[in-house]
Amino acid sequence: VSSPSVPEVRVLAINTGGTIGMTPDSQNVLAPKANALVKRLQKLPMLHDEVYAEKTGLYERYGDKTLVLPKSKCNKRVIYSVQDYSPLLDSSNMTPEDWARIGKDIEKNYEDYEGFVILHGTDTMAYTASALSFMCENLGKPIVLTGSQVPIYELRNDGRDNLLGALLIAGQFGVPEVCLYFYNKLYRGNRTTKFDSGSFDAFSSPNLAPLATSEADVTINWDIVWRDTSMDKFRVSTEMNRNVGLLRLFPGITAATVKAFLQEPMEGVVLETFGSGNAPDNQPDLLVELKAATDRGVIIVNCTQCLRGTVSMSYATGKVLMDAGLISGGDMTPEASLSKLSYVLAKTGLDRDAQKKMMVENLRGEKVTDLGGVKLQLRDS
Amino acid sequence: VSSPSVPEVRVLAINTGGTIGMTPDSQNVLAPKANALVKRLQKLPMLHDEVYAEKTGLYERYGDKTLVLPKSKCNKRVIYSVQDYSPLLDSSNMTPEDWARIGKDIEKNYEDYEGFVILHGTDTMAYTASALSFMCENLGKPIVLTGSQVPIYELRNDGRDNLLGALLIAGQFGVPEVCLYFYNKLYRGNRTTKFDSGSFDAFSSPNLAPLATSEADVTINWDIVWRDTSMDKFRVSTEMNRNVGLLRLFPGITAATVKAFLQEPMEGVVLETFGSGNAPDNQPDLLVELKAATDRGVIIVNCTQCLRGTVSMSYATGKVLMDAGLISGGDMTPEASLSKLSYVLAKTGLDRDAQKKMMVENLRGEKVTDLGGVKLQLRDS
Amino acid sequence: VSSPSVPEVRVLAINTGGTIGMTPDSQNVLAPKANALVKRLQKLPMLHDEVYAEKTGLYERYGDKTLVLPKSKCNKRVIYSVQDYSPLLDSSNMTPEDWARIGKDIEKNYEDYEGFVILHGTDTMAYTASALSFMCENLGKPIVLTGSQVPIYELRNDGRDNLLGALLIAGQFGVPEVCLYFYNKLYRGNRTTKFDSGSFDAFSSPNLAPLATSEADVTINWDIVWRDTSMDKFRVSTEMNRNVGLLRLFPGITAATVKAFLQEPMEGVVLETFGSGNAPDNQPDLLVELKAATDRGVIIVNCTQCLRGTVSMSYATGKVLMDAGLISGGDMTPEASLSKLSYVLAKTGLDRDAQKKMMVENLRGEKVTDLGGVKLQLRDS
Amino acid sequence: VSSPSVPEVRVLAINTGGTIGMTPDSQNVLAPKANALVKRLQKLPMLHDEVYAEKTGLYERYGDKTLVLPKSKCNKRVIYSVQDYSPLLDSSNMTPEDWARIGKDIEKNYEDYEGFVILHGTDTMAYTASALSFMCENLGKPIVLTGSQVPIYELRNDGRDNLLGALLIAGQFGVPEVCLYFYNKLYRGNRTTKFDSGSFDAFSSPNLAPLATSEADVTINWDIVWRDTSMDKFRVSTEMNRNVGLLRLFPGITAATVKAFLQEPMEGVVLETFGSGNAPDNQPDLLVELKAATDRGVIIVNCTQCLRGTVSMSYATGKVLMDAGLISGGDMTPEASLSKLSYVLAKTGLDRDAQKKMMVENLRGEKVTDLGGVKLQLRDS
Repeated sequence: VSSPSVPEVRVLAINTGGTIGMTPDSQNVLAPKANALVKRLQKLPMLHDEVYAEKTGLYERYGDKTLVLPKSKCNKRVIYSVQDYSPLLDSSNMTPEDWARIGKDIEKNYEDYEGFVILHGTDTMAYTASALSFMCENLGKPIVLTGSQVPIYELRNDGRDNLLGALLIAGQFGVPEVCLYFYNKLYRGNRTTKFDSGSFDAFSSPNLAPLATSEADVTINWDIVWRDTSMDKFRVSTEMNRNVGLLRLFPGITAATVKAFLQEPMEGVVLETFGSGNAPDNQPDLLVELKAATDRGVIIVNCTQCLRGTVSMSYATGKVLMDAGLISGGDMTPEASLSKLSYVLAKTGLDRDAQKKMMVENLRGEKVTDLGGVKLQLRDS
Repeated sequence: VSSPSVPEVRVLAINTGGTIGMTPDSQNVLAPKANALVKRLQKLPMLHDEVYAEKTGLYERYGDKTLVLPKSKCNKRVIYSVQDYSPLLDSSNMTPEDWARIGKDIEKNYEDYEGFVILHGTDTMAYTASALSFMCENLGKPIVLTGSQVPIYELRNDGRDNLLGALLIAGQFGVPEVCLYFYNKLYRGNRTTKFDSGSFDAFSSPNLAPLATSEADVTINWDIVWRDTSMDKFRVSTEMNRNVGLLRLFPGITAATVKAFLQEPMEGVVLETFGSGNAPDNQPDLLVELKAATDRGVIIVNCTQCLRGTVSMSYATGKVLMDAGLISGGDMTPEASLSKLSYVLAKTGLDRDAQKKMMVENLRGEKVTDLGGVKLQLRDS
Repeated sequence: VSSPSVPEVRVLAINTGGTIGMTPDSQNVLAPKANALVKRLQKLPMLHDEVYAEKTGLYERYGDKTLVLPKSKCNKRVIYSVQDYSPLLDSSNMTPEDWARIGKDIEKNYEDYEGFVILHGTDTMAYTASALSFMCENLGKPIVLTGSQVPIYELRNDGRDNLLGALLIAGQFGVPEVCLYFYNKLYRGNRTTKFDSGSFDAFSSPNLAPLATSEADVTINWDIVWRDTSMDKFRVSTEMNRNVGLLRLFPGITAATVKAFLQEPMEGVVLETFGSGNAPDNQPDLLVELKAATDRGVIIVNCTQCLRGTVSMSYATGKVLMDAGLISGGDMTPEASLSKLSYVLAKTGLDRDAQKKMMVENLRGEKVTDLGGVKLQLRDS
Repeated sequence: VSSPSVPEVRVLAINTGGTIGMTPDSQNVLAPKANALVKRLQKLPMLHDEVYAEKTGLYERYGDKTLVLPKSKCNKRVIYSVQDYSPLLDSSNMTPEDWARIGKDIEKNYEDYEGFVILHGTDTMAYTASALSFMCENLGKPIVLTGSQVPIYELRNDGRDNLLGALLIAGQFGVPEVCLYFYNKLYRGNRTTKFDSGSFDAFSSPNLAPLATSEADVTINWDIVWRDTSMDKFRVSTEMNRNVGLLRLFPGITAATVKAFLQEPMEGVVLETFGSGNAPDNQPDLLVELKAATDRGVIIVNCTQCLRGTVSMSYATGKVLMDAGLISGGDMTPEASLSKLSYVLAKTGLDRDAQKKMMVENLRGEKVTDLGGVKLQLRDS
């Protein structure tokens, strides 16, 4: 056994499940399969260097489920240990409890690794990335979620490149954010949404440019990387309020439907409104239900159902929502708004007004704070 | 009064309201203003040729609220009469009754015009376009919805160009569809969604290429233009079932929330699922609620919450929804699915199974019929 | 005559010619027509407010060919005087003498206006914008080039919106650069290229994000706006060396062709190479010709023929060009490189080495200075 | 040795050189290295299945430099034999002789393989793809060019996926064209250009949609696939005229430069003009040189220097080129025009007029034949 000749960096890869590690069952339906991923990775030379592993006693040093990438351009070795969840989860089955578990696992291992990669199904990855961004307080290391549209066992797949890129970024570049890496782009996690169910280019962050592109070169847009300025110690706040929901407006929605959705025990709702934050202003009964809910303490956040854009209050139909006690979600995604609500409502030390204030603030780069003001200055005509 | 020297074509422009004709009220909140639009248009030389109007006795021939475009490249004159709704509607306030009204107005005037332009707020324009596409049976003339992001009274605005382009297309090119025209592109109406709340380029049809681009030249993609092959007479079916809704899944959604949403009198629901049609398969109580609803006759259509893509059944988490009685929405938008449900459920002559069959069929180009089959053949790896 | 009630800003609009003001001649071929533009503009209410003009004695104050925009969102009046070139020029006919004339006209009027709009044909607009950016030293006011794909006399055209947007930006926002405004985007002039001959969206700046977007709102990306830090007085350096050229490599190019192109009196050449700056390294006779030229003082700048990207020296086929005495153009466009050569070679007070150094430096934001270094640090693998 | 259990298809992979197989030399400059590629591929499990190879006696059957892909989704085995050129070529060094060699190698092996993959440097791949498309007459099998931006020996690279995708398409889908495959898209070869020197997404075909996308699924756009309707036997016409060149117009270009470029032995020139085919019409000496050249039989093809678009004749500055004897290149790329010239001028059985006619015709889908006419009909205004 010889000493490593180049610096090693360690990454913890938490495999929660998802398409990347799925295999078809007997009826040809894709499902997660326990322990299959590490075995598969060990056979892929771009994701594991067995010669190096044996030469340096990798398994003795870090355990069986540890792998090592070939030497990188930065002349480093990324060592990564895979922690499989059991059972593996399809991301459609993810709940706030699962988010908390991931958070706890990161907290427990925070000091031992340079960065973290979370393997996750694509379906709810944007929700989990958003939730983790709020749960992780005073974060100083990269947490990179990734996955794939096609399982890594298939001949053509996007899993190899997504995993490789995520590991290199988590291990070598100190972007201290909860990120999402997909198809050679790095996004801020709480800005993402899955916008294409069938393409390798499945994610986008409609209201923020990517944090980095990783093609022939890795180019990080440091100007927009979020840095926590607090001096406090990293901690994961896993309390999440479950009584939250997402309701999309549609023409003809009735007061009865809104009332049913807002009923107890609901405490926080993201209302996906029309355009830049509009709702019917000619349905008093509907507005009455919204007002009744906010009066009894439900926080209702106004987000647009458009992929891109922000809510404002320049239309009569937007103003009535403000009057009904809703607060503006600005340019937050519904995914970020929902998990932020869940996080903020769990801050039981705060009263509702303090929680509302928190919802409006920019906590983790999830929204533009003062867009309205800036834009008004810039409007020309 | 002299005779027109070039051919005239007539278009009916129904002004339902929306940003295009809005003006700021005393508190600087935008609101629709009655009768303001025609007056504004009369002063815009690219939208009205007063000299021609007077020379040819236009107002005597067609009434006060009629305007005429300057001569077009095709050497025609587009004459358009504006019918203002009263009160004008913010599109956030549109309901199925309003869709029906538009439909009736088209039906009434069908023989007298070459085509129809519907001025409409952008917020719910995609819903209305979808609804009209189903309501209009055996359509043989263009119906073009348009509007703007910035009111036409403002110095810089997109309303002038959107209206002008829509009028030229409705009057001169026989695209026999319900279309949506915006920022120099023509889309199939039931394929559209408002994807950007703040840009002039506000609409897209994620799963279908535009029907036409209209820049230096108008280029129509005739290969994909939908043509009704029926020999039956045009009619508008204005019966729409109001007991329909749109529910977006989110991680942590409870059976109680789903149950509350599905409760009577709900008869049809579009379920916006994760990715390519997935939902939790580890929450039996939630699946029980879905199954109970479909068992009592509620039609639940599985659509993806991704902007682009289609639902399929290749994941365990997708299969459970099929087992719970949901039907696949394929690559339909939620907007199209919802209005199609409303249309189909109003076909009281049909039983539920026939209605379900109709939901799965491609009625107006709103979905790809046999995508699954075609794609399976083409998959390589 | 009453006093203006809102602040007025003055813009000089220099109409050099181009499609925007063209009309079809008797054979239906488009050609510029003298004095037609102002008359046309006076009839377009979004480009001229005749009531205001008369009320405030505009023509007495500023002359016949002065127009005034309606009041803008910023509550200002943009007054613009049109100076028509005679004869009007198709931009295909533009030469360095014409660039110098524009520069001189700006210099002469620099103190009297807030900003400048140059109406110009699209065909060579990127060349002229680049040239002006170098000729204008210590610039502190906006110079905005614009034009259109379709003449303003046509029913549907992009000229109205391009001119209106350019005037508002030149008059109201202090972007102290030579810019190009087209289809609602503001670009740095020396970064642009005409990349689409048939679309309204005709320009792009492939290696730099737009300086501003101007849709429902004007959003200026102040982070990348270039500011001249010199305290020196604005001046226009109109000396341009004419002995420059642009040569695109192609497979099979012969030494004879290269020699013929490089022959006297050529003093500076932009060589459009393959990929990231490559040329054949197995054609010694061709390299001999390049070396002979650089040896006798010809400056040859290596630019890529790809629309986007930069030249580097990491391939054997790139290194031979360095050995032959070429200098790297980095990520400059061919348009910017050519006009920069013309500008730098006219600095007769400098020797060739000083001129070469200037070519490599970033003078007006036309290139990234130290891209190589930065990127190498960031490369991961 | 056991018999193959699934159908096998054979592909010939001709490795001409290029980045995909490069390794850094002692000075860290990238250069091709003989015989390195096959050895590298044998170690990549997605590109070679050694178990299958040994079990089925692959090397005995097809030779040492043969590899086999894992079983594909179509349930086939793609067997591919690699033929390395010696020396390997940087694509910057490619000449018409090299194109001919590739053509001859395809012709020789035409009957023995289902399809052909050409590994090629990216720098001139669009030129070679264009040339091959003309040289290959009556083609009935796929010829797919590919390569990579990053060498396959590097940790992160695009070579693995590009090669894998190209092999699967060449072996399994009968697209009977010379294609270019890059970053999950299949393009018609003679429509492509390298438009980004630094991105994995390096190619585009600006005037034609991709023939196929290959992400989670392979979707072939059969509507636009070109099919040779001739019943004649496949043949490769390797005669290429070398006396051709590419000249890009720039403002200030002199008659002397044009004359020097057009001098003997030049027989065909692609003139990259401004916008939709324009050149100065106020420089009689320059036009005289063009006219003199066409009069003595030089074919000059008018192509736009814009990435996208077509040449037309609607401007005075475009008309003069027609008068000078130039022919329109329509929407052909410069790369396609140049290699088509080289091909057509080598048809020594044809006189110049017949050759000119051929240049204007659509031979291999490289241009739209009758765009002008179609568009004129569609223009509205």
